[in-house]
Amino acid sequence: MRRQFVNDPHDVVREALEGFARANAHLVRWDREGNFVARAQPAAAGKVGLLAGGGSGHEPLHGGFVGIGMLDAAVPGAIFSSPTAAQFEAATRAVDGGAGVLHILKNYTGDKLNAGIAAEIAAEDGIAIERVLVDDDLATDFEDDRSPGRRGTAAVIAVEKLCGAAAERGASLADLAALGRRVAEGSRSLALALSPLAHPGESRPSFELGDDEIEFGVGIHGERGIDRRPFAPADELARQLVEPVADALELGEGDQVAVIVNGLGATTNLELQVVFAEVARRLDARGVQTARALVGPYLTALDMAGCSVTLVRMDAETLALWDAPVRTPALTW
Amino acid sequence: MRRQFVNDPHDVVREALEGFARANAHLVRWDREGNFVARAQPAAAGKVGLLAGGGSGHEPLHGGFVGIGMLDAAVPGAIFSSPTAAQFEAATRAVDGGAGVLHILKNYTGDKLNAGIAAEIAAEDGIAIERVLVDDDLATDFEDDRSPGRRGTAAVIAVEKLCGAAAERGASLADLAALGRRVAEGSRSLALALSPLAHPGESRPSFELGDDEIEFGVGIHGERGIDRRPFAPADELARQLVEPVADALELGEGDQVAVIVNGLGATTNLELQVVFAEVARRLDARGVQTARALVGPYLTALDMAGCSVTLVRMDAETLALWDAPVRTPALTW
Repeated sequence: MRRQFVNDPHDVVREALEGFARANAHLVRWDREGNFVARAQPAAAGKVGLLAGGGSGHEPLHGGFVGIGMLDAAVPGAIFSSPTAAQFEAATRAVDGGAGVLHILKNYTGDKLNAGIAAEIAAEDGIAIERVLVDDDLATDFEDDRSPGRRGTAAVIAVEKLCGAAAERGASLADLAALGRRVAEGSRSLALALSPLAHPGESRPSFELGDDEIEFGVGIHGERGIDRRPFAPADELARQLVEPVADALELGEGDQVAVIVNGLGATTNLELQVVFAEVARRLDARGVQTARALVGPYLTALDMAGCSVTLVRMDAETLALWDAPVRTPALTW
Repeated sequence: MRRQFVNDPHDVVREALEGFARANAHLVRWDREGNFVARAQPAAAGKVGLLAGGGSGHEPLHGGFVGIGMLDAAVPGAIFSSPTAAQFEAATRAVDGGAGVLHILKNYTGDKLNAGIAAEIAAEDGIAIERVLVDDDLATDFEDDRSPGRRGTAAVIAVEKLCGAAAERGASLADLAALGRRVAEGSRSLALALSPLAHPGESRPSFELGDDEIEFGVGIHGERGIDRRPFAPADELARQLVEPVADALELGEGDQVAVIVNGLGATTNLELQVVFAEVARRLDARGVQTARALVGPYLTALDMAGCSVTLVRMDAETLALWDAPVRTPALTW
């Protein structure tokens, strides 16, 4: 049986937000009425406001990335559920400093719908809004007109970091939207699960896995992957993740990437470092430079064991933005 | 069956160090010959060298805390095994800048023995060495002369941070040793496991737990705890951890503490925030001020699910040291 630290399973997001805001009160505040996380100290007027939102259960995403050099606000839904339009609207109004607001969304129907309603209402009051949609999950890259398109996963962290740095430097709303779209377009990810997740208070896992199986191409909500494959040594699993991603981005000699090896919840730092080492070696073999790296749990799927590998094409401009100072609960340098 | 990202179970530490050093090359270097992690840029001559060491399987501890404002080097043993005297000696020599070296150790027999041999050898060459022993685990606070004393757990992070800040400001070896001992003496911890850990490549857990049980008072090596208790809601479990710790430190009205709610490996950020919220409320109820907080996986026990709660008595001096800049792979502000 799966045991978790939980009181009322229906109240876990609110309870966690209380702890999160208190532990990080020097960086963020939780606006209980509007139900969003914002910077403890608002950004200077004239800066474009950056807002991300989506379901909870992916901590530290997105609230952990609110702070100087990254987001101005994050809108948390219930576990794996879209935030409401009212939340998006309240946060949009809160972070508008006169220069408009950028909505950074992962590609999920509910998030798009509710953020869109909020954008329409805010626009009626003269708030300029642009949207960047992140759709990096290669496992959902179907050539099918009825498909909702690729899901958004860990590339959203790169979009938030790079746009956050550019916004801090005074970039316009249009420039930020263009930058975000360029970063998203140059990013792809793949994930695999070694074990399924369980919802807070539930012992039933989200899917069943045999002793010698892994779930390949999983999303971040406990949904089944695209393929069930044999369990294998870490290096082999790392190759199954990185090679298709590098192929999709057509990476070759001289290209530069940022690598995100992201833990899905229950996978240890020790294991993620082993995976990263092989990912970097495979990129070496292609002549691709691992210019920057993040290795850790950044976008989780509750307590799933597994990881995702994200590659982000980088150039001189985005490398400088990556290196710009950032000061948030989950990312600081 | 437990599945992990592992190649050769006997080589996992080396493989993870390769990934860790590469992902964090701007901050740390891995000295393969001496088998220790050191700062990428050595500290200025005249600063006391700070060195911590112990078994691996606790990542990000200790290598993740090497960098400006914290450790100069970290010595990793095999999984849950003491580093060798040769490793301690090589790292001690590497970080001595003429002002001596402080060994920060968790209270385990092998660590003490091997660091002690290294200290004797280095002392023969005129390197001044002091030791701070961290022994915060309240679960092992036996009144028994044959006991090896309390185990060292997450309070070591506070000792490393505070001594690291003081060393950066030019404190002498004697002053750092006194500071570290004072911090350790004012710190206590308790841990509980919701599920046991498994060693890399092994599916057999370190102990068995019934469906409605938790293991209370666990250490960080998969050893059994001191008590098997019923599984309970998060707030109740948080109280079982924080109340005895606050009692042991005789905390009351007006006291200030730093709180570390530490994930043991497979426990999510969401859960840790829920636990922290209740810990802070219990301290509120005593009139104890939660002056600073760390919530996350800082000292893990491979993939154990569970957490520890550490309280560290703080005063104006240690609060200033806590807030001093730090720039390491696992802790930066």
